[in-house]
Parts: sequence; C-alpha cells; structure tokens
Amino acid sequence: ATNQIYSDEGMWLFNAPPRKLLKEKYDFDPSPQWLEHIQKSSVRFNSGGSGSFVSPDGLVLSNHHVGADCLEKLGSAEKNYLRDGFHARTREEELRCHDLELNVLMSIEDVTDRVKGAIKPGMSADQAFAARRAIMAEIEKESMDKTSLRSDVVTLFEGGKYHLYRYKKYTDVRLVFAPEQQIAFYGGDPDNFEYPRFDLDICFFRAYENGQPAKIEHYLKWNEQGPSENELVFVSGHPGGTSRSLTMDELEYKRDVQFPFTLERLHRMEVLLTVFSARSEENARRAKDTLFGVQNSRKAREGGLAGLLDPELMNKKRSEEQRLKSAFKDSGQYDNALAAFAKIASAQKIIRQNALQYNMLEGAAGFNTHFFGIARTLVRAAEERGKPNGERLREFRESARESLEFQLFSEEPLYGDFEQVKLADSLTYMTEKLGFENPLMQKILAGKSPRDRAAELVFGTKVKDVAERKRLYKEDKAAFESSSDPMIQLVLLIDAPARAVRKILEAQDELKRQAYGEIAAAKFAVQGASTYPDATFTLRLAFGQAKGYEEDGKQIPYETTIAGLYERSAQHKNQPPFDLPPRWQERKERIDLGTPFNFVTTADIIGGNSGSPTINRNGEFVGIIFDGNIYSLVLDFVYTDAKARALSVHSHSITEALRKVYDAPDLVNELLGKN
Amino acid sequence: ATNQIYSDEGMWLFNAPPRKLLKEKYDFDPSPQWLEHIQKSSVRFNSGGSGSFVSPDGLVLSNHHVGADCLEKLGSAEKNYLRDGFHARTREEELRCHDLELNVLMSIEDVTDRVKGAIKPGMSADQAFAARRAIMAEIEKESMDKTSLRSDVVTLFEGGKYHLYRYKKYTDVRLVFAPEQQIAFYGGDPDNFEYPRFDLDICFFRAYENGQPAKIEHYLKWNEQGPSENELVFVSGHPGGTSRSLTMDELEYKRDVQFPFTLERLHRMEVLLTVFSARSEENARRAKDTLFGVQNSRKAREGGLAGLLDPELMNKKRSEEQRLKSAFKDSGQYDNALAAFAKIASAQKIIRQNALQYNMLEGAAGFNTHFFGIARTLVRAAEERGKPNGERLREFRESARESLEFQLFSEEPLYGDFEQVKLADSLTYMTEKLGFENPLMQKILAGKSPRDRAAELVFGTKVKDVAERKRLYKEDKAAFESSSDPMIQLVLLIDAPARAVRKILEAQDELKRQAYGEIAAAKFAVQGASTYPDATFTLRLAFGQAKGYEEDGKQIPYETTIAGLYERSAQHKNQPPFDLPPRWQERKERIDLGTPFNFVTTADIIGGNSGSPTINRNGEFVGIIFDGNIYSLVLDFVYTDAKARALSVHSHSITEALRKVYDAPDLVNELLGKN
Repeated sequence: ATNQIYSDEGMWLFNAPPRKLLKEKYDFDPSPQWLEHIQKSSVRFNSGGSGSFVSPDGLVLSNHHVGADCLEKLGSAEKNYLRDGFHARTREEELRCHDLELNVLMSIEDVTDRVKGAIKPGMSADQAFAARRAIMAEIEKESMDKTSLRSDVVTLFEGGKYHLYRYKKYTDVRLVFAPEQQIAFYGGDPDNFEYPRFDLDICFFRAYENGQPAKIEHYLKWNEQGPSENELVFVSGHPGGTSRSLTMDELEYKRDVQFPFTLERLHRMEVLLTVFSARSEENARRAKDTLFGVQNSRKAREGGLAGLLDPELMNKKRSEEQRLKSAFKDSGQYDNALAAFAKIASAQKIIRQNALQYNMLEGAAGFNTHFFGIARTLVRAAEERGKPNGERLREFRESARESLEFQLFSEEPLYGDFEQVKLADSLTYMTEKLGFENPLMQKILAGKSPRDRAAELVFGTKVKDVAERKRLYKEDKAAFESSSDPMIQLVLLIDAPARAVRKILEAQDELKRQAYGEIAAAKFAVQGASTYPDATFTLRLAFGQAKGYEEDGKQIPYETTIAGLYERSAQHKNQPPFDLPPRWQERKERIDLGTPFNFVTTADIIGGNSGSPTINRNGEFVGIIFDGNIYSLVLDFVYTDAKARALSVHSHSITEALRKVYDAPDLVNELLGKN
Repeated sequence: ATNQIYSDEGMWLFNAPPRKLLKEKYDFDPSPQWLEHIQKSSVRFNSGGSGSFVSPDGLVLSNHHVGADCLEKLGSAEKNYLRDGFHARTREEELRCHDLELNVLMSIEDVTDRVKGAIKPGMSADQAFAARRAIMAEIEKESMDKTSLRSDVVTLFEGGKYHLYRYKKYTDVRLVFAPEQQIAFYGGDPDNFEYPRFDLDICFFRAYENGQPAKIEHYLKWNEQGPSENELVFVSGHPGGTSRSLTMDELEYKRDVQFPFTLERLHRMEVLLTVFSARSEENARRAKDTLFGVQNSRKAREGGLAGLLDPELMNKKRSEEQRLKSAFKDSGQYDNALAAFAKIASAQKIIRQNALQYNMLEGAAGFNTHFFGIARTLVRAAEERGKPNGERLREFRESARESLEFQLFSEEPLYGDFEQVKLADSLTYMTEKLGFENPLMQKILAGKSPRDRAAELVFGTKVKDVAERKRLYKEDKAAFESSSDPMIQLVLLIDAPARAVRKILEAQDELKRQAYGEIAAAKFAVQGASTYPDATFTLRLAFGQAKGYEEDGKQIPYETTIAGLYERSAQHKNQPPFDLPPRWQERKERIDLGTPFNFVTTADIIGGNSGSPTINRNGEFVGIIFDGNIYSLVLDFVYTDAKARALSVHSHSITEALRKVYDAPDLVNELLGKN
C-alpha cells in the first residue's frame, strides 16, 4: 500500500497537514501554534480569491486581480481606479467596497459520521439527496446559532468526508491601496500564465468591525528578504477546485464535453466584451474586470484541455486508476468500491444528457445579465422561505441568509447598455443551443428578436433599484406572479423547468457522492488516510521550494528583478500591453533595480489561490501568489514539479514600490510594524 | 403575375440589365456602349473583391482591405506596408504582388440549353452531377482553346440558368499606392459596418502585360464632384453571394446550423489570432489581414443571424414563399415546381447530416494551415491529372489549370510559428467536434497531443519550399504514397473519407440544382423573366440614389466630410482605433476640411462588392464601395432601402488626400488624365 504523493504535492487540510513529508524532506515539524497562526492569518475573499492579514489593524493584502471587482464597482466614468490605481492617505479616505465579504477560518470539525448517518440504506437518490441537504443545513444552523460564526459543511474527497468549517466574517471591507492595473497585470493576456514575469499584482484592503479597523491577533510579519533559492516556503490559501481524484470516465467527460463547451462560451464572451470595450474608454472600464476574468479562464481552460488531450498525462491517469482497481481487487474486500466506478459512469451519462438544459436554464448561461440573477433570487426567496430550513434550495438555507442578503442588496453600479448587450448575446446563444423551434425558447423570446427582447427585459425591469429589491424581498409568491416586471415574469416562466433539471442533476450528484465515498473509504484503507482531498475553495496548506526550471534547454532562474521589467518594456518599445505606467517611467532612477520582483516555487496551487501569502518557516510573509506558469495549467488533473511553478510577487518589490513609486511610507511602516 | 422587385433592388446581370426600372424611376436608358464600357472597366480581384480601371495605363483602384492580402505578403518585419502605407514614386518602384490575379469580363454567353441537355431523364444524382460537371468542363475547355480567355460556366438562379463568362486575365499586378491601414480602416472593428464613417479605404495597383503597363481601352474617367444628394448612381462589381431565393427550409438551416457553426469557429479564430497578435508587433503584422477577415466575417454573420432571428424578416420571407406557391398552384401547371420544395428539403437533410464531416475534412476546418492546402493540391493534382478533363474534381479542370498553378507556386512568405498555432488550434477543434475516440481522429493525431502533432506536421513538411512544390507537382501518385513528408501523409490519410463526403454533398447539391431549376422556370413563367439571380462573385450592376436615412429619430446625412474625421478623433482623445496616422495629424492645416469623405447610396451590394466603383450616369467614377452599414447586413436575405445603405469613399477625398497628405501629384494627374 503506497501513498501516491510526490515531492511537493498537495493542497493539505489544516487539520491533516503533511507532517511526514515535511519532516522527511525538509526536517520541518509545524507546531499546532504555527498552524493556528497561519490558518487565522489567512483570509478568504468570497468574490473568489485569497489573502492574508498583514498588520494588527486589519490590513489585508490580496492580488490586484482579486480586488479588481471592488475597484471596478467603486469607479465611475470620472474615477477609473482600475486604470489609475488608488491610495487612501488617511483612514477617512479608505473606500468601503460594495459587496466584499472576507472569511477567516476559525475551526474545523469532522461531521462525516453525522452526515453519512442521515443516508439510510434503500433510500432513492432523490431521498438521499434531500436527507443529506437537510442534515447539512441542520448542522450549519446549529453551529451558527451556537457560535454566531458563518458555518459551512464542506464535502471533501468527493463525498468521502464532511467537515464543518466555521468562519469569522467581515463585510465592512475598505479599499486602502491599489497600483495601476498596467503594472499589476504587466504584459496583459500574452504574459498571463507565463514566466519570467514582472507584475505588482497587489491590492490592500482593511477589515473593519463596528466602524473601526478590526483588531487582529493573527497576522503575518513582513520579511523583506524573501525566500533564498531552494528555501522551503508555504502557501496558505483557497484553491478553488481540482479534478485529480475523478475517475477516467469523468475526465473524459471533461475532455469531450465540459471543456469544449466552456471554451466555446468563453470565446464568444471574449469577442463580445472586446468589441463592447473597443467602442469607448468608458465601455472598456465597465467591462474590464469581466473581460479579464473571461480571458483568464480561457487561457486556463485551454491549458487544461491541452492536458486532457495529452496522451502522456491521460495514460498516467489511466495507469493510476488501473493500479487502484487492482489493489481493490487484490484485497478482495472492496467490491463496492470497484462497483462504484460504473455507478459514477452511469450517473455521468445522465448528467451529460441534461447538462445543456441545466447550463442554460439553471446555470443561466442563456440569461447573462445581473438583473436576471437578482430577479431570480427575489422570486425564489419568496418560495423557499416558506419551507423548512432543510428542504430549501441549498443557497437559501438559514445559515447562508446574511451573506445572500449582503450580495442581493449590493449598491454596485449596473449599466443598462452593458446588461443589454450581454443578454442579447446570451439569448442568441441559447436559441442556437436549444433550437429556435424549442417551445420554451419561443416563450422566452416572446415573438421578438433576441436584441429587442433583451432591451425590453433590461430596460423594463425595476430590480436595478436596490430599494425596489428590498421591497420585493418582503413579498410573497403571489405578488411576484401578478408582477408586471418583465424580468420577474421571465424568471417565473423558466423556474419550473430550471428546478426540474436541477433536481435531476442533484440526484445524480448524490449518487456520485455515494460512489466516491465508497472509493475514498477503500482508498484510505488500501493507501493510508494521509492524503489530501481535491480543492474546494476552502483553506489549504501547500508547500514547496523557491526553484527555477529548465525550458527548451534554458535554465529559468527562480526570481526576476525590477530591472527586468524595464528591459521587457524596452524590447516592446513600451507598446501595450508592455507599456509602463507613467509613474514607473518617471521614477525609474529612484528605484533599486536589483530588487527581486517575482519568484517561482514548486508549491501546489490552482485558481482561487490568487492572493495567498507565501510564507517561510518562521511564519513570515515573503511573497504573494498571483499566478502559475503555463505548465501549471495541468495541475487541475495531476501534480508535477518538472516545470510547473507557482508565481509570487516578492515581498521586497512591494515595499520598494510603495516607498519609491507610490510615496506610501505609511503603508510600509504599517507592514514593517513601525507605526 | 407581379415581379417582386422593389425600388433600387437588384444585383443585375450585364446581359439582362433592369431597363424598365431605370427608365421608369430614373428616366435612364443605358446604351449598349455604356454597358460595355462599365463592364470592361470593372475588375475582379480573385483574392475576393472588386475594382476598376481608372487610367489608360492599367491603373486599378480597389479597397485597402482588398489589397491588404498583397500588402501583407509584400511586407516583412522591416517593412510594414499595412501599417505604414506604400507609394511607388516611379514605375520601377511598383511592387509585384505574389499571387494576385485580376479578371476583366469580356463576354457572356447563355449555355443553359447545352448544360441542361446533358442531364438525361432517369439519371441518378451521381450520374447527373458527373454529366453536368463534364459538360461544364467541356464548354470551358472549348472556349479557352478558341479564345485563350479564362472561361467559367456560372450557375445562376441556383441552377435555373448557366452562362459562360470569358475573362481577360492579369497575373502581373503591381502595388502602386496604399495609405496607412489606420486611415483606410479608421475606427477599426467598432466602426466597421457603421455610418457615419471616415475611411480612406483605397489601394492602387497597376496591371502589367509583357512587363509593361497594360494599355486599357475601357477605364473610368474621374469625377471629383461626386454625387449630389438623390443622384442616381451605379455600382459595378462582384457581389460574392446572397441567399434571397433560398427556400424557407434552407434559410432555417442557415439560422439553426450554418450561421451558429460559422460564428463559433470565427469567435474561436478571433481569440486565437488576437492572442497571437498581442505577443509582438511582428506577430500582429503577420496575422493582421487574417484577423481583419475574421472580424469582418464575424460582424457580418452576427448581423445576418440577427436578421434570421428577426420575426419580421422571416415572416416576410415566409409570406413571399407562400405567395409563390399559391401562384404555382393557381396556374395548375407547376406541380413539378411545387414538388421541388420538398426535394430541396430532403437534400438539405442529408447535407445537414454530413456537414460537419464535410467541413472538417473536405473544407479543411480541422487543418487550418496553408501547408495542408498546398500538400493536398499537390497530392490530388497527381491523381486528377490522369483522368479525362470532365471527370476531374472541378478545381482541376483544364481551363482552371493556369490559375491553380499561379496560386500553388506563389512565393508568399509563410511563417512556421503562425502555421503551427493555427494548426494546433484547428486540430483541437476537430477533436472536439469529431470526438477524441473517433478512429480517424486517432489516426490524424497519431498518438500525440494536437500541439505536438501540429509542430511535427508544420516543421516536418517540405512543401513550404516553392522549388519543392514545383518538383512534387510533376510526381505521380506512387511517389506521394512513398513520401516521408508528414503533411503529405496526412493528406493521403484523410483523402478517401474527404472525397467520399464530398461526393455525398455534390450529389445532393445536384438534386437541389435540379429542383431550383424547376422553381426558377416556373417563376419566370409566372412572374416574368426580368429579374436577377442571387450573387455568385460574378459581375453585376446595381443602382440607387445617394441618400441619407433616419435612425433613432435622427436624420443621418448622405455624406461626411474630412472635418468629421478630426472631430471623431478628438472625441476619442485620438486613442486607438480612433487615432489618426501621424501624417494626417501633421497636415491637417493643408487639407480642405469641407471635402466630402464618405457617402451612402441605396445600391444593392454585399461582400465581394468591396472596391466596386460607384459611377454616375455619364459612366464617370464618383466613389468606391468599401462597406455597408449595420442595416445592410440582412441584404443577404432580402433587399431593403429603409435604412440599409452601401458606403463609398468619395472621389474628391481620394484626390485631396493624394495631393495634400501623400504628396502624390503623379497619381492625381494620372487619375485626372493630365499626364
């Protein structure tokens, strides 16, 4: 029984850290205090990303591209914070984000037995799903009532384990500092997922409580030295999702259906947003963060699909699965685990048949406008509220209510023309996919062209107005049914089929969860339990070395310097996207060009880790994760340290830039504890 | 029996001009001499576009975006003619294009009876297709032997008529003048298909014969006045293709399958090319013309699909078809024509089932690299040469040999890295569409990832070398079969299935041609024969008025001025794509800003008309077609003059720019006949 963990692999649970690996390879033994300190210094950005506390006064550091959502929403035609950057020189100047929620993990509790115990033999898939949903909602509600902490039951090992995560929540989060996007995302799409790099991908926020900067016990001390070559470092953050333990059937589904489908949609959206952006500077500002997200996903998915189409990778995965099945067979005790593979395949077949309908209606790929999502939340809230907590659609469970309302009542600016363009395109897309003659499609279009229908919906709905949302949120189902709001009527039109297809998928997901549970249990028995589950946008600990790699026969050093930034700009005649912000051009002479800028490590990361602190043995901040290189895009399916690397911004380049480029000694002093 | 021709509708045959319409509406009666003069002054660009002779010394004017193909091929990393423009100040400086063939229509002969006579009752679809192919090749070969002119049998009215077109051919075509792309395509993609516009979309070439400028009898005299408001003008050019006479079944196929499929591919290519271009200035130069073509098609197709999804347009088309069927029924004589609709629908069904396979293998959507096309031409030529002329694949017929060899042996620069990127992406695309497990796909990929396989094919083939192409062109089939060139082996691998699916589609197309022939004959009988066929990239005469239109309650004037260019640039802070070339910034003071720049007419045009001269009653050049407005994108399916307009560059802006911006008095004098 060998545990298939290689070198620096793993996105480890904080309650099951890789003690043996660390001890053997690095002679490092993390103490409980060390682990607690790192855990509580780590911050989850619920908009999708990671960060860390870096001062006792609630200062939080994340990536610019994680903060971009907030930067865009705070901006206007007159104030383009994304382009120009932002710096609050006093606490009063700090700007409150519209709808940014930060979570800090306070405790983990294993509730596997309780969750699994709710599933009784002989239950149908629908019954089992309902029972599992109910017990999870109950555990969460109990926990929240008891601790007042945000409480989420997290499904690990695809259903092998269930842990209760309790979070401290911050919803008063203010923007402190951001550089220009041009230096944060220097090199743009061409350099995204590439290395060497020269990006100052940082953004500072401050968590507030009761109108005052939060007092933070656990925060990371700043280490300007950064990591030396081959030094052991840790990454503590929230990898969004990986697919490493999926069966070959599921990987083939991803290769044949899911990735191509997603990429088709991303290509379409990228063109739409690029065209919209080219029309005017203000359009570009409004669409910028969305466009970045689309381009980033497109490049990541392309790399992922290339991995799935790479015979070497797939053969490796196939052999691993064969080895596992052989081990099950050899032991003679795991017929149920062996049978689970076929169960997953048959569930997956049903999912495949329903995926398009699900994506369009429940996934709302056909209704790409914020107004649809808002209207649906309002309509469904009225219905779900009337049900017992355990029977509601999971997003309406009691323990999630505060966070849901926080998002629903966000005052973020929304622009009709942009919403119309997105909706018109997605209605066209849905017409193409479901077919013009589809009776539901005919009702959705209501005898109009997609363009006219989108205009009617976007400019006719009143849910743009937050006061109206608050009013509607108190209404009952009957009030919505008699509403003349066209978007609400659209939501009602598709709600029954959307719920129906969701129910089908929930049942199949439940069957898969059970099957994966069987496989996981057998795997623990055969290989030992000392492993890590696929990523779930919950806190994980990764580790590795600061280390370069070889590419096309050339050695790529582990770190770059600020001098390299100026060289790259000169090579490209300072043309976009390789142009420097004016401040960086003007202040070149002041800067110590030898300052390390970005560096790479072998740590195991994936999307969602953006903004994670890179930490040394002493628990000090030495850098911040902002990207992976192109070889890291297969980490979704398999870990490799041959050429795959995680990219960090070096701690020293941050303080150097704050001092010399941005005249921000206040921030530097706060980071260095000199206030 | 009413002929459904509205106002200024029609892309008329030169041997069947709209005499009655012109007489009634404009009191204009074109003489045979007038028609001959316009016809022989008109030039077809075989790269896809139109143009006209504008001097007795072979000077040809077309659009910059038509000439861009030649400009790109003549360029290099050091000489970016697309970006910087070009001006040969002497004849010696004129640059010969690599593979540009111009055609001038010399005569038209109706060969309908002979072509239709070859189809005998009781022939199968395959037999009928073969018979039709053979008779067309025979007619063409006879004509070429007799006249030495390029001779093409053109299928008109979807099979209703067959005309023999004879062309004088120019293959020594030299670049004389091009402005910067930035002014030719001012406003870029956002302004493409929009109006008001400010584009100097022109490019001058010179046709040579025997190493000397061609002596031209028929050329257009330059009229600097341009058209006055409401003046009658003509457009003589080569509309590429329209779908106006298609049945509703076929239009629905376009709406449901063809347009979505094409758009998906265009979106994908646009992203690919944009990403490739962003990496460096040289990449951008290499991909620029391809990217423009993709973006242009994308916008045109989006407009077309919007039309097909517009209930008003489709209801109109449906009513027209109903009226036609009723007329057939009422007369009691056209049961065959009525039956033809079902025949078309059933043929279309088989085409639909085979379209994907056809597009991938025979259409080579899965092999997006020039090297594949070259290798296939070489391989197939060896096989086809051995067959009688009438039995060859149509592109290998004897009468087309010279033009085929001219393209095949083009010395145009091709870049391995660019070819690899395109091929890797298209192999991935084909894998997604045909399925990874597809046995043929497995053979195509040969156990490698698409990226590795593309590298192997592109860097392993020798067909990049023109001398090697010439050597291979003389080889026989056996030599190819034993070749170790990977691209040639790939061609051989897929040639049988590619030919097989082509054969299926050719047979169905034949059935459709017969069915449309029946409908056309009945239609002529019921409605009168005075109509025009759908566009076929052959010479047509359109007409209309210089006339503005109303949009959102605002009157859009029929012409713009150069002053408007500077205003638009200022509105956008001279930011791309609204930036002015340096010369236009520096020389603003010299220019007469009141000079008319672009104007619109109600003439009936479509893609392929780009570069067509706009001509007044006196047969003088008053402008050059370069685009349609956004409302014109439905002209594919139906003519409308409500808001749809054809866009021209005004003759005066051309001479004004040549004088004041480009210091080109030589060209101005040649245009004005002052040499």
